[in-house]
Amino acid sequence: MHSYAIIGGSDAGISAALRIKELFPDARVKMFLKDEYPNYSICGIPFYLSREIKDWRTLAHRKRQEIELSEIDICTQEKVELIDVKNKKVHSGKGEYTYDKLLLATGAQSVIPQISGMDLPGAYTLRWIDDMLAIDQYIIEHKVKEVIIIGGGYIGVEMADAMRIRGLDVTLIETSGAILKTLDHEFGRRVEDELKMHGVNIIHETRIKRIIKKQTQLVVEDEGGIVHESEMVLVATGVRPDTQLLQESGISVGKWGAYQVNRYMETNLEGIYAAGDCIETWHSYLKQCVYLPLGSTAHKQGRIAGENMVGNKVSFEGSLGTQVLKVFDLVVGRTGLHDRDCNNYQLPSKTIESEHWDHKVYYPDAKKMFIRVTGNPLTRALLGIQIIGSFHSEISKRLDIAATAIHNRMTVDQLRDLDLSYTPPLSGPWDPIQVAAQAWSKECKI
Amino acid sequence: MHSYAIIGGSDAGISAALRIKELFPDARVKMFLKDEYPNYSICGIPFYLSREIKDWRTLAHRKRQEIELSEIDICTQEKVELIDVKNKKVHSGKGEYTYDKLLLATGAQSVIPQISGMDLPGAYTLRWIDDMLAIDQYIIEHKVKEVIIIGGGYIGVEMADAMRIRGLDVTLIETSGAILKTLDHEFGRRVEDELKMHGVNIIHETRIKRIIKKQTQLVVEDEGGIVHESEMVLVATGVRPDTQLLQESGISVGKWGAYQVNRYMETNLEGIYAAGDCIETWHSYLKQCVYLPLGSTAHKQGRIAGENMVGNKVSFEGSLGTQVLKVFDLVVGRTGLHDRDCNNYQLPSKTIESEHWDHKVYYPDAKKMFIRVTGNPLTRALLGIQIIGSFHSEISKRLDIAATAIHNRMTVDQLRDLDLSYTPPLSGPWDPIQVAAQAWSKECKI
Repeated sequence: MHSYAIIGGSDAGISAALRIKELFPDARVKMFLKDEYPNYSICGIPFYLSREIKDWRTLAHRKRQEIELSEIDICTQEKVELIDVKNKKVHSGKGEYTYDKLLLATGAQSVIPQISGMDLPGAYTLRWIDDMLAIDQYIIEHKVKEVIIIGGGYIGVEMADAMRIRGLDVTLIETSGAILKTLDHEFGRRVEDELKMHGVNIIHETRIKRIIKKQTQLVVEDEGGIVHESEMVLVATGVRPDTQLLQESGISVGKWGAYQVNRYMETNLEGIYAAGDCIETWHSYLKQCVYLPLGSTAHKQGRIAGENMVGNKVSFEGSLGTQVLKVFDLVVGRTGLHDRDCNNYQLPSKTIESEHWDHKVYYPDAKKMFIRVTGNPLTRALLGIQIIGSFHSEISKRLDIAATAIHNRMTVDQLRDLDLSYTPPLSGPWDPIQVAAQAWSKECKI
Repeated sequence: MHSYAIIGGSDAGISAALRIKELFPDARVKMFLKDEYPNYSICGIPFYLSREIKDWRTLAHRKRQEIELSEIDICTQEKVELIDVKNKKVHSGKGEYTYDKLLLATGAQSVIPQISGMDLPGAYTLRWIDDMLAIDQYIIEHKVKEVIIIGGGYIGVEMADAMRIRGLDVTLIETSGAILKTLDHEFGRRVEDELKMHGVNIIHETRIKRIIKKQTQLVVEDEGGIVHESEMVLVATGVRPDTQLLQESGISVGKWGAYQVNRYMETNLEGIYAAGDCIETWHSYLKQCVYLPLGSTAHKQGRIAGENMVGNKVSFEGSLGTQVLKVFDLVVGRTGLHDRDCNNYQLPSKTIESEHWDHKVYYPDAKKMFIRVTGNPLTRALLGIQIIGSFHSEISKRLDIAATAIHNRMTVDQLRDLDLSYTPPLSGPWDPIQVAAQAWSKECKI
């Protein structure tokens, strides 16, 4: 029976390991983790720090014991230092292990910007469970009442939400003119309004140069020399693939620094697979690779890697960059491409925004939602959708209707042909995304 | 400029009229209604009777004045008695009108079962706004505190919910062993549990023979001679197409008594179209006609009829029978086919039920949902999905992901390839419908 080594115990690694054991219960699977937390939902970190979740151990998708029931050998606190490709051996500080097939599921790491003082107590990046526990402990021990968050991406915004819920004063500092740059600015601004309404102070177009300790405070100085004081600083300025391993063995790494794989999750090195946040991801619409680190994608890729490592042949069908975010009472998300994406890939595109009730307005609690439909005015292909609306307006699964339509290469006009569900408390006889598509079709007449 | 006559002012009729005027603002459009209420949302009737809606006039999708702004001539209380096909004339009690193109959008009417005493005060069917107003008035005037509902279909169940919310005692009487026969019995029973939990008394396998007046009470006697007493009786035993018009002119009517049209909504009579609950509907998966009267479908068909009546050529892409229902705190629905449907059409099918959390269980308020996936074990085609779950679990739009997948003829296995949105408060990294599809795939191994 074959031996499998898996480097990394988060979404992609665990999905692969479980799939291997599901298909071949006798396979030997050894999984190496840098930390102590196999199969933790790092997407859940903000909800523990906000105290919406009381026990951080519930963040485990599966308990260690459950995973071990499948006889997966989990080696925690065991960082892999070297992989000997020729002899198919993994070397960690604790020993060596011979494999037949190997999976790189090393994930991503926080980008640490060029800020001096990041090593000061009270300054943190946020990626792994250890980061979360350290931040939590610091807040408790120092009775922290205010925090500066550097970076207005998904994590920065979720943390701003979380820290407000926990009762801290929050200042969010963003280098550009708008937060959430993976959405159109119009929607970034709506999210800013929601953040401000909940007391978050937002500072735009400000690049931080250094952090200095001043008694119990941290002083954050920007490039213009202006200082911002707080008790704690969280830096959430994005992630980059963690691909230090194997670089000297000639593994193929692309422009984002991520491992390159084919649709079967195989790297260019024989017997070595990669999946999750450490790889370039096949985009199903663009039909080329992009860097799109997302938990939902990592789960899929891990499962496919596991399937193929035991000798099957399953292809990864690709990502559409479907993302969704809850910010206080709002939900905002996207799938597919927006105009700036299209511009980057020389795709003609046009985006039309429209406004809708989430259900028949005569039924109580109807809420407004805004939909931005992006289509190709030449081919009329549906390229992308962005939606922002209320927590209970089924925003995320409306995005998924569009994701399913894009996956199947429907045109914007064809959305009106879908037979979608209707009852007055939940929708209209035409779903809002169909009405939004009609608005696009009308604007972009044939 | 052409003249258009439209018989019926509900979903299909109005959609057609508005589309005609949108494309040709100068067209003459005359719409004949039997009642006083153009463009009312009859799907909203239960929510007025429950008093969740305070003002019944808000049930109008559009106000009469709004429609008249488009210069549509609305003739209310004007029943069409005869259509002279040869001379293209519509005769109502009030006069005659010459048309170039005509649309039959007469809708459906309540099936009145073989029950004597249906004409007694306090015994009602429920279809149109006039029915609603009469029932409402009767409840108020007679201070009604209890009601018997005959029929456990969608309307019967919605009315049971509505009458309980209004504070009445409710008994629901159903001829068969389970309510909601368009769903699998397993789900019908879950809805029964919800109804019972909210105090609805359910009586199965009971066919009512007659209703008798006994002082202030109505006595309902079943075929076994058992009597059930109440102050009011609502009969909701289904609908049938209202197709009395033109039967003598040789219009094609099928086995359900509904007008037959082609994909352009044309009847077999030149210049005469039909749409909505009075027609047989093209089923996009079965690729044949069925009788599926639904408001969402009527809107689509009406719009397409209008488009084609002015000379365009747009095809109706079909229905999948997507339906959803809110019952107290539950939402239940279906799209596509279930085993009994498949059996009727000699399609091989297999259904697997599975149980899921609506979002990551570590985040507060996670609720269970149940999903029944029906697939063809030979072709592996996704045939249908049924879901039951909590009001805020995005059940209806999860159904729509499946509706979009079936529309595009995906296999059950391919659902796992969809890039669906994930954030812990709203889903899992694999959406429940993907996990349900995997359960089916595992059970029906290739």
